[in-house]
Amino acid sequence: MKPSWIAVDWGTSNLRAWAMGPDGVVLDHAESADGMGKLTHDGFEPALLGLITPWLGAGTTTVIACGMVGSRQGWHEAPYRTVPCTPLDASGLITAPTADPRLHVLLAPGLRQLAPADVMRGEETQIAGALALTPGFDGVLCLPGTHSKWAHVSAGEVVSFQTFMTGEMFALLSEHSVLRHGMQGSGWDDAAFDEALSDTLSRPEKIAARLFSLRAEGLIAGLSPASARSRLSGLLIGIELAGAKPYWLGQPIALIGAEKLAAAYARALKAQGADAHILNATDCTLAGLATLARQPEATR
Amino acid sequence: MKPSWIAVDWGTSNLRAWAMGPDGVVLDHAESADGMGKLTHDGFEPALLGLITPWLGAGTTTVIACGMVGSRQGWHEAPYRTVPCTPLDASGLITAPTADPRLHVLLAPGLRQLAPADVMRGEETQIAGALALTPGFDGVLCLPGTHSKWAHVSAGEVVSFQTFMTGEMFALLSEHSVLRHGMQGSGWDDAAFDEALSDTLSRPEKIAARLFSLRAEGLIAGLSPASARSRLSGLLIGIELAGAKPYWLGQPIALIGAEKLAAAYARALKAQGADAHILNATDCTLAGLATLARQPEATR
Repeated sequence: MKPSWIAVDWGTSNLRAWAMGPDGVVLDHAESADGMGKLTHDGFEPALLGLITPWLGAGTTTVIACGMVGSRQGWHEAPYRTVPCTPLDASGLITAPTADPRLHVLLAPGLRQLAPADVMRGEETQIAGALALTPGFDGVLCLPGTHSKWAHVSAGEVVSFQTFMTGEMFALLSEHSVLRHGMQGSGWDDAAFDEALSDTLSRPEKIAARLFSLRAEGLIAGLSPASARSRLSGLLIGIELAGAKPYWLGQPIALIGAEKLAAAYARALKAQGADAHILNATDCTLAGLATLARQPEATR
Repeated sequence: MKPSWIAVDWGTSNLRAWAMGPDGVVLDHAESADGMGKLTHDGFEPALLGLITPWLGAGTTTVIACGMVGSRQGWHEAPYRTVPCTPLDASGLITAPTADPRLHVLLAPGLRQLAPADVMRGEETQIAGALALTPGFDGVLCLPGTHSKWAHVSAGEVVSFQTFMTGEMFALLSEHSVLRHGMQGSGWDDAAFDEALSDTLSRPEKIAARLFSLRAEGLIAGLSPASARSRLSGLLIGIELAGAKPYWLGQPIALIGAEKLAAAYARALKAQGADAHILNATDCTLAGLATLARQPEATR
């Protein structure tokens, strides 16, 4: 059965596609590791065809894609829209150049903020989806990840946002710094996470000194890898929450992210007296892309 | 001319040796990239012989080495001494096992602090050298680098110390994170450094948000690579100085480090109203090792 359209989430590391039926039903799903980071300019169309060819019929199928695929280093640049504005608008979609006549590929633009300077690509689609799934939501959306985003949304628009390199810092420190020696495995220690989080929120200026203490305590005080990993996570999420406090303090909060990560952020916010509602990240991505498919410009 | 003894500074990345004559005169110098990080357990003696064989005579020559060579992953472990204590003491020297009868290799122990947990290996020798070169110094020594150390010294002893991963963070962020895209070259921007430093010292909780702004301003506001590098340095030295404030505030300060780096720290401290005296790092290492050579245990 030929899909009505195809939804694509194309980031730096992964390519995910969904064959969409009428009324937002997902007919099929496929994914590969052909993220933007691995592709040269002319590699995007073959990578997409490699994944979705079984879904294509005789005529033209519309593909709507969000994420780094629309960056300057991606398939084709979809220029940023500037906040304050709605998270997505079909009039901002850019048609990617294609050789295969069966494809009509539209790329969603990201958002930029002029001052303080900030950018997002992909998260705007999740934000649009979150607003579609929770109509009338006014407050703050937190999208934890490699580059965590905090966005203030009001009356259907993104008013302002701020990015934190928390996930990337965790990966660099736990896999590539001297701290990696005491971080093996995947164990977890809630108490160590909570304590590091609370310490960092109350004394953020101590963050740089606290990082090396993970190595020193591993060497001379028997700190376990599980406690070290959890403390590192608590330190980094703690300094993010300290910086993002003007966003979340006293606001309704929704978290969009992978299950375990979103749960860690919810726990951290709870410890600060803030309740957060968790939304599934893939649900938000699909709901966001669907808002574009419903707008007439998307099928021009 | 056969040296009286041989001084060795053997860190993670490099091996440096000096042929020492009577009265501390340097007769010759040699170095290689055979740092501890590249060597397996049985690679240390050949790496040393490859460098110093031209200096060896018929009898036994004493080699005194400091740095990571004395760690558990090094040639042979020289167990930490525990502060408060003098930075070096010849009674703590450990003899490394050798096959060549011309070698008598002594390894200097590092220092540890039990609470808060911290460790150093190599810097204790520079601290001993700094005290030898500036007798009677009471105050704070700052040793900027991959893992910057701040040490409070009084009455010839290291009272306490604290480590900051500033140099390693700069390398990870400028070479391996998303920030690397806007950091090429070696240009410098003093004003950007000063501003980032001052911002971070006054609002340390903003450090995590300020890091990604380097990328965003590069993308949409034309931030130059030189300004981005300088701001990154200012942010990281700023958060170090914020954490180390209990060390340096109101204390006499001496800086031991590579010329440009020590100058950046001196500039940063000056902006906070603190004057620092700069000591040459190699001079301190040699003066520190010489204090061991003068003690009778070193030649036992």
